[in-house]
Amino acid sequence: MKKVLVIHGPNLNMLGKREVEVYGMTTLDEINESIKEEVKRYELEVEIFQSNHEGEIVDKIQSALGRFDCIIINPGALTHYSIAIRDALAAVKIPAIEVHLSNIHAREEFRHKSVIAPVAIGQIVGFGPESYMLAVRAAAGILG
Amino acid sequence: MKKVLVIHGPNLNMLGKREVEVYGMTTLDEINESIKEEVKRYELEVEIFQSNHEGEIVDKIQSALGRFDCIIINPGALTHYSIAIRDALAAVKIPAIEVHLSNIHAREEFRHKSVIAPVAIGQIVGFGPESYMLAVRAAAGILG
Amino acid sequence: MKKVLVIHGPNLNMLGKREVEVYGMTTLDEINESIKEEVKRYELEVEIFQSNHEGEIVDKIQSALGRFDCIIINPGALTHYSIAIRDALAAVKIPAIEVHLSNIHAREEFRHKSVIAPVAIGQIVGFGPESYMLAVRAAAGILG
Amino acid sequence: MKKVLVIHGPNLNMLGKREVEVYGMTTLDEINESIKEEVKRYELEVEIFQSNHEGEIVDKIQSALGRFDCIIINPGALTHYSIAIRDALAAVKIPAIEVHLSNIHAREEFRHKSVIAPVAIGQIVGFGPESYMLAVRAAAGILG
Amino acid sequence: MKKVLVIHGPNLNMLGKREVEVYGMTTLDEINESIKEEVKRYELEVEIFQSNHEGEIVDKIQSALGRFDCIIINPGALTHYSIAIRDALAAVKIPAIEVHLSNIHAREEFRHKSVIAPVAIGQIVGFGPESYMLAVRAAAGILG
Amino acid sequence: MKKVLVIHGPNLNMLGKREVEVYGMTTLDEINESIKEEVKRYELEVEIFQSNHEGEIVDKIQSALGRFDCIIINPGALTHYSIAIRDALAAVKIPAIEVHLSNIHAREEFRHKSVIAPVAIGQIVGFGPESYMLAVRAAAGILG
Amino acid sequence: MKKVLVIHGPNLNMLGKREVEVYGMTTLDEINESIKEEVKRYELEVEIFQSNHEGEIVDKIQSALGRFDCIIINPGALTHYSIAIRDALAAVKIPAIEVHLSNIHAREEFRHKSVIAPVAIGQIVGFGPESYMLAVRAAAGILG
Amino acid sequence: MKKVLVIHGPNLNMLGKREVEVYGMTTLDEINESIKEEVKRYELEVEIFQSNHEGEIVDKIQSALGRFDCIIINPGALTHYSIAIRDALAAVKIPAIEVHLSNIHAREEFRHKSVIAPVAIGQIVGFGPESYMLAVRAAAGILG
Amino acid sequence: MKKVLVIHGPNLNMLGKREVEVYGMTTLDEINESIKEEVKRYELEVEIFQSNHEGEIVDKIQSALGRFDCIIINPGALTHYSIAIRDALAAVKIPAIEVHLSNIHAREEFRHKSVIAPVAIGQIVGFGPESYMLAVRAAAGILG
Amino acid sequence: MKKVLVIHGPNLNMLGKREVEVYGMTTLDEINESIKEEVKRYELEVEIFQSNHEGEIVDKIQSALGRFDCIIINPGALTHYSIAIRDALAAVKIPAIEVHLSNIHAREEFRHKSVIAPVAIGQIVGFGPESYMLAVRAAAGILG
Amino acid sequence: MKKVLVIHGPNLNMLGKREVEVYGMTTLDEINESIKEEVKRYELEVEIFQSNHEGEIVDKIQSALGRFDCIIINPGALTHYSIAIRDALAAVKIPAIEVHLSNIHAREEFRHKSVIAPVAIGQIVGFGPESYMLAVRAAAGILG
Amino acid sequence: MKKVLVIHGPNLNMLGKREVEVYGMTTLDEINESIKEEVKRYELEVEIFQSNHEGEIVDKIQSALGRFDCIIINPGALTHYSIAIRDALAAVKIPAIEVHLSNIHAREEFRHKSVIAPVAIGQIVGFGPESYMLAVRAAAGILG
Repeated sequence: MKKVLVIHGPNLNMLGKREVEVYGMTTLDEINESIKEEVKRYELEVEIFQSNHEGEIVDKIQSALGRFDCIIINPGALTHYSIAIRDALAAVKIPAIEVHLSNIHAREEFRHKSVIAPVAIGQIVGFGPESYMLAVRAAAGILG
Repeated sequence: MKKVLVIHGPNLNMLGKREVEVYGMTTLDEINESIKEEVKRYELEVEIFQSNHEGEIVDKIQSALGRFDCIIINPGALTHYSIAIRDALAAVKIPAIEVHLSNIHAREEFRHKSVIAPVAIGQIVGFGPESYMLAVRAAAGILG
Repeated sequence: MKKVLVIHGPNLNMLGKREVEVYGMTTLDEINESIKEEVKRYELEVEIFQSNHEGEIVDKIQSALGRFDCIIINPGALTHYSIAIRDALAAVKIPAIEVHLSNIHAREEFRHKSVIAPVAIGQIVGFGPESYMLAVRAAAGILG
Repeated sequence: MKKVLVIHGPNLNMLGKREVEVYGMTTLDEINESIKEEVKRYELEVEIFQSNHEGEIVDKIQSALGRFDCIIINPGALTHYSIAIRDALAAVKIPAIEVHLSNIHAREEFRHKSVIAPVAIGQIVGFGPESYMLAVRAAAGILG
Repeated sequence: MKKVLVIHGPNLNMLGKREVEVYGMTTLDEINESIKEEVKRYELEVEIFQSNHEGEIVDKIQSALGRFDCIIINPGALTHYSIAIRDALAAVKIPAIEVHLSNIHAREEFRHKSVIAPVAIGQIVGFGPESYMLAVRAAAGILG
Repeated sequence: MKKVLVIHGPNLNMLGKREVEVYGMTTLDEINESIKEEVKRYELEVEIFQSNHEGEIVDKIQSALGRFDCIIINPGALTHYSIAIRDALAAVKIPAIEVHLSNIHAREEFRHKSVIAPVAIGQIVGFGPESYMLAVRAAAGILG
Repeated sequence: MKKVLVIHGPNLNMLGKREVEVYGMTTLDEINESIKEEVKRYELEVEIFQSNHEGEIVDKIQSALGRFDCIIINPGALTHYSIAIRDALAAVKIPAIEVHLSNIHAREEFRHKSVIAPVAIGQIVGFGPESYMLAVRAAAGILG
Repeated sequence: MKKVLVIHGPNLNMLGKREVEVYGMTTLDEINESIKEEVKRYELEVEIFQSNHEGEIVDKIQSALGRFDCIIINPGALTHYSIAIRDALAAVKIPAIEVHLSNIHAREEFRHKSVIAPVAIGQIVGFGPESYMLAVRAAAGILG
Repeated sequence: MKKVLVIHGPNLNMLGKREVEVYGMTTLDEINESIKEEVKRYELEVEIFQSNHEGEIVDKIQSALGRFDCIIINPGALTHYSIAIRDALAAVKIPAIEVHLSNIHAREEFRHKSVIAPVAIGQIVGFGPESYMLAVRAAAGILG
Repeated sequence: MKKVLVIHGPNLNMLGKREVEVYGMTTLDEINESIKEEVKRYELEVEIFQSNHEGEIVDKIQSALGRFDCIIINPGALTHYSIAIRDALAAVKIPAIEVHLSNIHAREEFRHKSVIAPVAIGQIVGFGPESYMLAVRAAAGILG
Repeated sequence: MKKVLVIHGPNLNMLGKREVEVYGMTTLDEINESIKEEVKRYELEVEIFQSNHEGEIVDKIQSALGRFDCIIINPGALTHYSIAIRDALAAVKIPAIEVHLSNIHAREEFRHKSVIAPVAIGQIVGFGPESYMLAVRAAAGILG
Repeated sequence: MKKVLVIHGPNLNMLGKREVEVYGMTTLDEINESIKEEVKRYELEVEIFQSNHEGEIVDKIQSALGRFDCIIINPGALTHYSIAIRDALAAVKIPAIEVHLSNIHAREEFRHKSVIAPVAIGQIVGFGPESYMLAVRAAAGILG
């Protein structure tokens, strides 16, 4: 059975608690439950990880080497400047899918650019929690 | 039954015939067949339209008013400069999903920016023909 | 009797139907009626043309050569990138007046710049349908 | 009876005396006479003010509060850098119309941008003295 | 016998009729006659096409697949923004030669850059109608 | 007793009368009263000056030489372009504190940059009238 | 009693030990003592936190939710790139005051811009340790 | 006898009193005395004017029309943004010489560019008070 | 008989010896032989010059005054920065044709811009050694 | 005996395991062994530290104060944005040498700029593991 | 007796022969004669040097060390890119005066910037051959 | 025995004579002696060349083909604009090492960028004369 690693970046643990007008009312726990449901449909295993620390995310990506077949990552604010995460993904060469809840291209100018995207397989933005579910399906397609 | 309009922009009719190393070997007809299959799963109707003419795409979007519930659009090269298509989508206010076969963020600099994205619900890029299938599912989610 | 050609660019046929908070509730037909009234005051003839196709607008401008004495043009979204329309106006050398319903200088950054304006006599922006009436009067002044 | 304040910025008092190839041969006095004629057609009152001093123009705009219903302003060179005038117009919230004799979009690059325009109702450029007359009519439309 | 497709973009049908100080007094018909003469010298066949519509030019390029061995294209104003034409040329992979009558590098800044050039074999600019004849010879060299 | 000069730039005399949603409802007179109260707490003397004229502010700063020990300045719109005020402050070398009522860094892009700040001791922005009181205390600290 | 959280970013623990010509000779401990004194004057409670880790600062801000009424933050070098801290502050919506010891606007170009400032109430820069004391007073004003 | 108008812009009245390390120890009065001596050598008359007000300098330049044969101007800080002064000089068409005491090209980046220079005959920078004397000689050459 | 001067800039003497994948396998001697053949077809005389020294190329261009009727120049790397060569060509006013072997518009960004092109008649790029032959023909056209 | 601290930034622990075509096949352990050999030649002591966490690297640099005489640092991806590491190095004032395995100036544009370099003694890039050995020798030179 | 070295850069030997509408009709020989006359007035010796070669100018500047007291240099086109000449002037530390015949600030954008100016004492531009005479006088002032 | 060519660019012959505060007190002769000593340690032969002429450096690099195994080059000021040198190095494909005495990344902005670096193996900057010795060792590593 193929394994997927889902990584949530900084502040995503606040989902559903604050700024619901931007990010919606679903909590991260609820999203994670949906992800766990979703992966079953495609006969995938999943591990989910959240951190506000760039370094921990880099560590996690490195540790995925040989253990995971696909990474679904919402790098949060780190999307826009963490070349360290980009390099980690490039290093492990595990296919990665970048996900965002909101449509980053319709927000402030500085959120349009992702330093992660060029090393990802693809990017899915703007569908709220459904973005993750689409990513799971995309992962299933890639893996199989 | 909800109706989805799929719009393919310039040169997408060449899919599978040329530049297969970039865009893959699937032809547009094959993609369209898959889309027709996919919409059935979500009990949606679909109409598919391809044009190399910006003006025809604007006409088509305008004509969708009152007839379609969602637009899935791959604007091709027009992604990067057609403010006319952007304005048409903004005018009809039908929820739109932007789709790209290749990961535009990993290609030439001028392909990173979409003038369409700010008026779309979301953007799905990089998964080949599967990008359209993910968009169909996303549309189902929005319309459901 | 001097003749004026009025050209409405992409999406202006949607006026009064959508986005009324931005462009007002007057339809293009109503504006056209007002233009026809207005030209009579200045003893001008008028022909009115709308298209969502850049190429058709270029064709129309070229065909105006020898037939019209002034062009009033609202290029819509094409304002910002259609060097082809700019070149057509420069080629026929018929005095042209650029018109916009909304104040483009108070909207998104990319709408501030007009590639058409440098080859026009002048530009009138921000007065809603009245922008066209002011342009008719300006045309009368130029032709008078 | 509605009252309009016309403000001429720096160097407009030189009109018709110098650089007639750019700005035409009409003097500011002649323009002012035409404006006084024009306002009568629309049953408006007018006061006309010229200054080469940014501070005096700011003072004048502030003093217009409660005394004028519309401001027609040709800020001259201050168009391109006087945020103080912009802020004064924004503060008094009297509808303002920006006017230029020449087509600023067809001149040097630095003259294309107006810091005033975003707080004005609209902008009329390029019709010589007629620009002011069009502005009077536009004012009548707004006030009517 | 090898076949060459010559494409003239927007406003080139106005040649010799207007702006003769920039583009010279030769009409497009006269240029086309010269081209037809020229190709005979190199034992080439030629088809000539002019359009003011980006979409028609894209259609034409696509239709050239399997029918033509070389494309000589003067994209006119579309040179500077039509990524759709660029992509069409890239898709059909027929060797293309970009041609301009005037020296675009000696004109306005925005005319210096060609979005087409990176996918062309080469570029010939500034020799008036002779630019096309040089392109025919270059085509003969490539095809020979 | 140390003396502080407070300078209010263009349009600050409109405070509390217009745009209360941006600048609050306190009038400049009320702010001045609070400043006069505040300076007493720190045993400082104060003189307060407002002008819409850049030149008058420059004159005032020059005249402060030898008469004042600290300048608290809210340059208003002049913040963003008055190198003359900057140079005046640099010339007199009296310690200066830049103050803004609103958070200029959260407003339009062009308001983020202050040409005055590099020659000031420090900058206090965003606390409404309290910004001035904090500046008085800061002045007391510097002079104490 | 209202509670204030003071956050010191990277390298502020080195204060008074190195680069005293830029940052002064006061140590962070001494500043913290002064802050503790200062808050008493305004009947506020305070907790003080220093970290060189962006992630820990994000964690700390999140944990402040429901426990603190105001955040005073000197983000140090993270001021200029930590969108993660910006997003954390935006998420918890606790009023935040940005503080800097030195006048960042008078230092290297890259230090002028703060990505934090747009989500803060206000910014106080350039007064050395006194910057914190002014921030405490500002906090008292906001909370009072 | 030819007449020269010398204009000193903002803060030049502070010369020799402050910032002597940048501008030298000579006062403006001393410079003016030297100028008066110098003009005698070339049999020129001179009038000298200093103002901190952009508007007054514009007024002065306009009033020079028909009364002066050459203008020597050190626009001080206004060098870098006063398009109003530029336009005044362009309007009166009196030959103008721009002068600076310090080498503006060796100072801060924003002091390198002069908006005045393009309408001046020439520019002399960096020679301290001697810059004015060189300008007097240059004026004599132009007028002679 | 008209005379043509052919100038080869830096490193063109290395042709055919190194980097054959970029510049082809033809040596400069072979190209020169072809040029000599080609000029005979058009009854032109030719002199050929190669130098790695900007100064020598400037000297050569100056010495061409009165001796040559046309200059064909491939400035090599100097294309992108030698304003001295540009000025030399502008000074002698001999019609010049700029030539490049490779398509500079399809290479690194910094090779797209030519500082020479604005003073040349035209530019021919991308056809390998044939670029020179096309230039000879273009020269014949200009001189004929 | 002088002591050197070697710091490896994010992802350098992956060396020799992945992307060997870019970074070579030597592992970090092997490099560390070579460093330990190398320092002996120069009679230096060494401590080696690797972390994927910016904060830990800042902590480590601070802790070097008084314990190390030189720092050799390969900041990895943090090279391009970690002002916090720059400030830490500036704070401790221990001479630092920046090292990169690959030639960052021959890679993507965003890797050309180092925010660390301006506070380092020097930079050595492009020699693979040998870059570290050269840095050890450079350190010996500085300390010797 | 103090000695002055006058250096004329590329293409200045063409003066008075070509482009007289830009640079005037005086030849370089005539200018040199005037310079020789002028230096006598100030009891200076002069040596004059012209070269089209950057390297020769660098050599010349280096050789001036210990032999000349002042350098007057018109670097011609090299003004805009020759950092080598800048560095040579900075190395010898002989006071240098930059001279231009035409007003470079009123010409093409790329001619506005001088890389030489920051290391010169001052710059004199726009007075034709008189620019050199003013420079001689300025040199006399500096040396006197 | 492998042979190394050392190239010193413009103004490096002035080393130790001028600007010793920037470049140190060692003369170029002394550096060359050290280089000759250093190469012996690695059993390499060396030839050393200095020129202030770009063209001579290009000639020298070309002549190295087949005679040298490695080039150590300090291009001096030419580092920042000599694409001709870059192309020469790219043409001969001899491994090149770029060396600078000072840390160019800590100096003026325009010195940060090297046009040479992308075609070099690596770059060593900031260690004074020792930079060359490190380059010799690096060369030995590459060659051996």
